[in-house]
Amino acid sequence: MTNYQKLLRINTNGKSLRNITSEIAAIVADSKVDTGLCTLFLRHTSASLIIQENADPDVLKDLADFMAKIVPESASYFHYTEGPDDMPAHIRTVLTHTSEHIPINRGQLVLGTWQGIYIWEHRQQNHYRELVIHISD
Amino acid sequence: MTNYQKLLRINTNGKSLRNITSEIAAIVADSKVDTGLCTLFLRHTSASLIIQENADPDVLKDLADFMAKIVPESASYFHYTEGPDDMPAHIRTVLTHTSEHIPINRGQLVLGTWQGIYIWEHRQQNHYRELVIHISD
Amino acid sequence: MTNYQKLLRINTNGKSLRNITSEIAAIVADSKVDTGLCTLFLRHTSASLIIQENADPDVLKDLADFMAKIVPESASYFHYTEGPDDMPAHIRTVLTHTSEHIPINRGQLVLGTWQGIYIWEHRQQNHYRELVIHISD
Repeated sequence: MTNYQKLLRINTNGKSLRNITSEIAAIVADSKVDTGLCTLFLRHTSASLIIQENADPDVLKDLADFMAKIVPESASYFHYTEGPDDMPAHIRTVLTHTSEHIPINRGQLVLGTWQGIYIWEHRQQNHYRELVIHISD
Repeated sequence: MTNYQKLLRINTNGKSLRNITSEIAAIVADSKVDTGLCTLFLRHTSASLIIQENADPDVLKDLADFMAKIVPESASYFHYTEGPDDMPAHIRTVLTHTSEHIPINRGQLVLGTWQGIYIWEHRQQNHYRELVIHISD
Repeated sequence: MTNYQKLLRINTNGKSLRNITSEIAAIVADSKVDTGLCTLFLRHTSASLIIQENADPDVLKDLADFMAKIVPESASYFHYTEGPDDMPAHIRTVLTHTSEHIPINRGQLVLGTWQGIYIWEHRQQNHYRELVIHISD
């Protein structure tokens, strides 16, 4: 019975979708868990996690465009003291995910062929984001 | 090895975002789990869970305004027998979360400094909502 | 201590919301887990999971209409090589869920009376979708 936790600090370099699949796969390998569950938890409210296509970079462009349209930074918000990109970042986080969960089988994440794990930075500026990886069997 | 479950009945007092972080933290403390995972599951389809900013109440106002705009109660829906706020409540639930998951480290939820756990009541009227808390190590 | 995994292949018959609650309940019964957690993980980026009302089929119609409006297939996307329904399918997946999680109590999923588990196929065509069910206690 394993209950393995690790903290990853990730520099997002400002607004972006960053593929972190290989970092997570390496931590799963380190855990030596054969059959279990990997939980990712992001300790922030203006960046989020998604699982999405890992092949065509245009998918990431379209995702960013969609979010820019549906949650515009130009709209008027009560919460404004941290800049025009902060409240949209909170809303975009609510519409996506603070945690993601991937079962482990034969020592590997059961991701589909086209699935990658991404951190979505919603703020304009560079941020260090803390991600907790919890692995149990 | 612990597998701890508790049922919380929460009166939402109608449409609102209610911070339940301290209730959940108290249950985690009761469980005596040191390193593990806390799962929250809401047994409803017209209220939901989110993890969001716990500091500025304006963030909650902006979240509510965004949902009111993107999923209007004034739109025309096929499902109408339970009132004009019911179908929008279902859609708002789908766009947010029925379960949330926070790892536990050294006996405490690994929430970031600005993260709070909220029940989001999407119906106009008062409701008792049942929340299952599952804690494992 | 159980750590039970199963793979389900589901034919979605094209764009639809398919209730899979009874299939999942049967797998939970097979696992013989009394108190635990059931995690569902979909190995795809153009279909998703939701937990929603299991009573009035109009709710499913309204959900589909909402998604069609908020993420239109007629919009212009960079990612277009797999057809006009593919990029909207990716966005609809991001706005909903790749995994769902339901605690188990006394051998049964703790779903509320009105909650059903659905696979939401966002593509026009027939697809076989792989769902990993992970059950632990």
